[in-house]
Amino acid sequence: MDENAIAILGGTGDQGLGLALRFAVAGRPVVIGSRKAERAVEAAEKVRASVPGAAIEGLENGAAAERAPIVILSVPFEHCAPTLKGIQPRLRAGQILVSMGVPLATAIGDGATRLVGVWQGSCAELLAGLAPDGVEVVSAFQNVSAHRLQHLGAEVECDVLVSGPAPARRRVMALCSLVPGLRAVDGGPLANARIAEAVTALLIGLNARYKVPEGIGIRFTGLPGT
Amino acid sequence: MDENAIAILGGTGDQGLGLALRFAVAGRPVVIGSRKAERAVEAAEKVRASVPGAAIEGLENGAAAERAPIVILSVPFEHCAPTLKGIQPRLRAGQILVSMGVPLATAIGDGATRLVGVWQGSCAELLAGLAPDGVEVVSAFQNVSAHRLQHLGAEVECDVLVSGPAPARRRVMALCSLVPGLRAVDGGPLANARIAEAVTALLIGLNARYKVPEGIGIRFTGLPGT
Repeated sequence: MDENAIAILGGTGDQGLGLALRFAVAGRPVVIGSRKAERAVEAAEKVRASVPGAAIEGLENGAAAERAPIVILSVPFEHCAPTLKGIQPRLRAGQILVSMGVPLATAIGDGATRLVGVWQGSCAELLAGLAPDGVEVVSAFQNVSAHRLQHLGAEVECDVLVSGPAPARRRVMALCSLVPGLRAVDGGPLANARIAEAVTALLIGLNARYKVPEGIGIRFTGLPGT
Repeated sequence: MDENAIAILGGTGDQGLGLALRFAVAGRPVVIGSRKAERAVEAAEKVRASVPGAAIEGLENGAAAERAPIVILSVPFEHCAPTLKGIQPRLRAGQILVSMGVPLATAIGDGATRLVGVWQGSCAELLAGLAPDGVEVVSAFQNVSAHRLQHLGAEVECDVLVSGPAPARRRVMALCSLVPGLRAVDGGPLANARIAEAVTALLIGLNARYKVPEGIGIRFTGLPGT
């Protein structure tokens, strides 16, 4: 396992691919995971085409999850728990699983500006209940626009609320500084993922009302050092 | 009723008083309401001391509610429904009631960084179920720092997510432009108050973690015209 590598399961999707591109630009080795290895390989080739010399590869999700200390789960909400269950035997204590899932009501055929209730409170807390012992779950990146991530010429302009157990949280916060325009904000305990996830539904509604397909983001004002 | 007046029930509290000060500075007549008329009068005197010549008065809540087309309810969450029930007979069709309440878990003796679940989904929706026919409820101002509102020398630096029925929503959005640094953001249907209210709990946690007693705010990035 390369200590600098970042695995992105669902890295074939818009937001996961965007993160892969940005981390590759920052010079970090990236492993894209997908249910089908060939789709992961295709996505890796896209990244290599945009970022010549990128240390990028594409693997089936389980194989990808073994390759990095931080594993980002970037699949639609309804696939989050099944994907984690599928890779459970491949994860090892000390790894960090990053939850990006948002329980949008699209999961039950309703709209993307609304949420379904999750018994545990949030997607991130649902995943925390399924993660193997010693694998910490951290919530991050939900509110970052896929379009802005993929548009490498511009800054992303969004704060990332990072929630979860403190040592793991700090390691995920450090990832944000790899992407120009992203700023990590200490989101405290994992339960605050409930709010970060809800904000995504709000932003989807704002994008529609204000006709901003490239994606509206959030910033916190008054943080020290700003 | 003065069409330009703004009533603020609970205008003796930190956030309500802050709004009263800012609206008075903007030249709008302000009526502060409180359960006890004498406390409302005291708060009005504070405003007059800071804003010489302000058109400000203090009245008991029910009397205050009769005096303005827009009535802002700025009392702690657990007093929101009782206060509305108390003024129900004084409200008239066409008035707008602005919900600022946040169901912080302090209402049940738990912490201010957490929320209690409200059956209707949010404080604003709870109030919408209690408002007389023809009185529209709009959600706004929850995330605005009381400290920054009261500190008249500086801009407030916060976006205000305004949610509710469209015509009433637009009238409340127009109020935001009276306060330097506040920007109204079209928050769509009233149910989005759930998210605005949750963000307040998040901001309270951020204020503690980042040691910013004057209050962290939010901005949306990528809105048209910014």
